[in-house]
Amino acid sequence: MGVVVPLEDERVRSQNAVAQLQALVREDMEDVNEFIRDRMASDVPMIPELASHLINSGGKRLRPMLTIAASRLCGYQGSDHIKLAASVEFLHTATLLHDDVVDESDLRRGKKTARMLWGNQASVLVGDFLLGRAFRLMVETKSLRALEIIANAASVIAEGEVMQLAAAKDTGTTEDAYMRVIAAKTAALFAAAAEIGAVVAARSTGETAALESYGRNLGIAFQLIDDALDYGGRAASLGKNVGDDFRERKITLPVVLAFRRGGKEERAFWERTLREGDQREGDLEHAQGLMAKHGTIEDTIARARHYGAIAKDALAIFPENAYSTALLDLVDFCISRTY
Amino acid sequence: MGVVVPLEDERVRSQNAVAQLQALVREDMEDVNEFIRDRMASDVPMIPELASHLINSGGKRLRPMLTIAASRLCGYQGSDHIKLAASVEFLHTATLLHDDVVDESDLRRGKKTARMLWGNQASVLVGDFLLGRAFRLMVETKSLRALEIIANAASVIAEGEVMQLAAAKDTGTTEDAYMRVIAAKTAALFAAAAEIGAVVAARSTGETAALESYGRNLGIAFQLIDDALDYGGRAASLGKNVGDDFRERKITLPVVLAFRRGGKEERAFWERTLREGDQREGDLEHAQGLMAKHGTIEDTIARARHYGAIAKDALAIFPENAYSTALLDLVDFCISRTY
Repeated sequence: MGVVVPLEDERVRSQNAVAQLQALVREDMEDVNEFIRDRMASDVPMIPELASHLINSGGKRLRPMLTIAASRLCGYQGSDHIKLAASVEFLHTATLLHDDVVDESDLRRGKKTARMLWGNQASVLVGDFLLGRAFRLMVETKSLRALEIIANAASVIAEGEVMQLAAAKDTGTTEDAYMRVIAAKTAALFAAAAEIGAVVAARSTGETAALESYGRNLGIAFQLIDDALDYGGRAASLGKNVGDDFRERKITLPVVLAFRRGGKEERAFWERTLREGDQREGDLEHAQGLMAKHGTIEDTIARARHYGAIAKDALAIFPENAYSTALLDLVDFCISRTY
Repeated sequence: MGVVVPLEDERVRSQNAVAQLQALVREDMEDVNEFIRDRMASDVPMIPELASHLINSGGKRLRPMLTIAASRLCGYQGSDHIKLAASVEFLHTATLLHDDVVDESDLRRGKKTARMLWGNQASVLVGDFLLGRAFRLMVETKSLRALEIIANAASVIAEGEVMQLAAAKDTGTTEDAYMRVIAAKTAALFAAAAEIGAVVAARSTGETAALESYGRNLGIAFQLIDDALDYGGRAASLGKNVGDDFRERKITLPVVLAFRRGGKEERAFWERTLREGDQREGDLEHAQGLMAKHGTIEDTIARARHYGAIAKDALAIFPENAYSTALLDLVDFCISRTY
């Protein structure tokens, strides 16, 4: 497909990077996992059953790791970061449950989605349950500022999803409109997760803003790569179905660029397959061919590198130590996980 | 149908009662409404459009009125009760949006539901948006105790809905199991709405507990009457469809009692129509006939009166004034609104 493949040693290095971060926060993350198990308990058996299906499905817990690493980078020595991180994971899980209902998805991380096993109704309600528990955990930390940040993020994520819904199937979506969607639906939670790490450690506004910026730009890069991944690369090994976005007629950056760069006939193809939803045998392969022709996957990755670079510079005010190094390497991991 | 019809003057008196409460809190409720309009704003036009469809659909705003009246009963003179009341209405609206998706309802308050006009997807997401805004408003009051109460209520409501889902179509549901469902899905928010009125006024634990108990028991009575209403009475004039619960195969108390009191043939009828979902012309009328035969509507109302009486006694520790009188009369209103 002619995409830019990172050198093998760069990939290995970035794989090591996330392993390094995971090693650094291992003990804290064990506490986070214990809190998660503890707080998804309910007398209604379907709730922990459904919630644990997704929570234990092998996600990397990137967002709570951000909270933990950010708080440790800020020298935090207390225990509230555990509750905040668990709360972030609950909020994330709630949005995934609702997203799968909204997107009518069958698979997530290579497993059947909760809605396929327990139904849409239970997925909506257990999402609501987890949102309530997320706020309950936050309240226990008594940090009004962290609560404010997370409550805002919850609304902004939903706004992003509604924007995406309103722009769905619109092949004329601009790159700017697409960026507004992913800034809201994905980057807002990354930003909040990192920012509350500084908040719990009561750090200066400069350091808090730096971590917020780091999280926001990392989140944008992460989503851009996710969208590139959906059209190829090592998607299958990551439990994703190649072509999900195409089948769900989602307008992501690889499509936005291919549509704008294509001629009349190519635009007619995108209109037929995505706006009208008339998809035939071989259409996905044709779409991938058009993307290769116009280099839209490479350029999506290039955009991701741009935001990744901003994320790294945001962290530059912190002294170099194991945490800042791991967070910097995490950026490379998020970008090179694709191919 | 042989149901107990309250004397006309009792009904008129209780209608006056709610008008009296509304008059007492009119100015505060105007502020609440302004906050609601203000805080459902978003750059994404679909959000305020969808939210206002439901929020402006002529609901009585019972739950925020409870918060306002409870805080005033406790002598509160600040302005945070306005934000708390708006937050309660947002949380309530979010649960209604999600309920209509879960129940696949076409009508609410005599109007098409949001999901019929904007789709299930948007209803789920705008519900999430409102939940975020609800918590954001709460945070502004800086009351961690109120936040804790509302976060707990949010989880408990979802638990109640999941319980209802799990027991759906089970004609063998016991009265106790049914009571656990409505205590969670309905009474928890009434309880929280009243309790935070005392919390914001920093009243004693005895007074806080009294208002919590008042709200909880009022909520149970309210739901029992709602379930009776669904099989007759003045449902149409209240914008409800008689028989909705029957068509949606919900197991409510009038059914629980009719099933248990009925003979073999009658139980077979309930199994066919509710468990198996095989409903034919005339079945709703036959169901109403069985309820009349066994007096299950009257007895549902009798149970409601029981909880109403507890609600009233809970308030007895407060001095008699316009607010306590209006709250007491509200109990009668909730019970006699039916027939």
